[in-house]
Amino acid sequence: MTTDAELLAVAAEEARIGAEEGGIPIGAALFTRDGRLLGRGHNRRVQDGDASMHAETNAFRAAGRQRSYRDTVMVTTLSPCWYCSGLVKQFGIGRVIVGDDQSFLGGQHWLAEHGVEVTVVNDPALIATMGAFIHDHPDLWNEDIGEE
Amino acid sequence: MTTDAELLAVAAEEARIGAEEGGIPIGAALFTRDGRLLGRGHNRRVQDGDASMHAETNAFRAAGRQRSYRDTVMVTTLSPCWYCSGLVKQFGIGRVIVGDDQSFLGGQHWLAEHGVEVTVVNDPALIATMGAFIHDHPDLWNEDIGEE
Repeated sequence: MTTDAELLAVAAEEARIGAEEGGIPIGAALFTRDGRLLGRGHNRRVQDGDASMHAETNAFRAAGRQRSYRDTVMVTTLSPCWYCSGLVKQFGIGRVIVGDDQSFLGGQHWLAEHGVEVTVVNDPALIATMGAFIHDHPDLWNEDIGEE
Repeated sequence: MTTDAELLAVAAEEARIGAEEGGIPIGAALFTRDGRLLGRGHNRRVQDGDASMHAETNAFRAAGRQRSYRDTVMVTTLSPCWYCSGLVKQFGIGRVIVGDDQSFLGGQHWLAEHGVEVTVVNDPALIATMGAFIHDHPDLWNEDIGEE
């Protein structure tokens, strides 16, 4: 059985890749409940000039067309924003693992109220990475979440 | 001044293009409040095998990186699903024009409760097009909204 830590490590690796590319260091991956990887990705705003590619939407895209998401798990290094929370709700993704809800809090409580199983890890390394990024790049971060 | 009908016509043209490509006939466009087109697009599930590209997310993507969405208008031929409603909420898009909320009802009331100006047109031609598509392609339609 795959542990939550193993799943989160894939998202964290995606965040690292994004950071190395000069992008916003948020990563995500979509797995089946039994730990099979369907898709992984990271925020592409800087790299592709693509405002629509948050980590979660990029992982969802990489997973291709799926007939059901009920038995899937979205693992993300950062609490999913409303855009990505809406994705989880619309497609009925059954579970979300959040690496860090201290640097940013999106719609995870709303998802839990709607029956999604939400697990918050609050990994110190992820919190430190995201906190440093927000501190060093406030304009880019605010742009990514639509804050003026 | 650009009328709502003129804005909706751009989204409707995108829906037509999508249908001609053999795709799901939903179109959208993002405008400034004073009618300048920022981006337009349509559902790309069939054409690109891309589950992440709903009409609204495709139009949002085509608009590129924007610093503020407060004075923008998302025009869509169909009521935005939760994924696309989450997009509108997260990025603070100020207004949504819905061409049809009879074939499908997404998160538009939730958006209105959160201060988004929502205008519903219910254009008979759009309702007829979407109704026929759902009738003729129930599996594809259900896949696009995550229904099993």
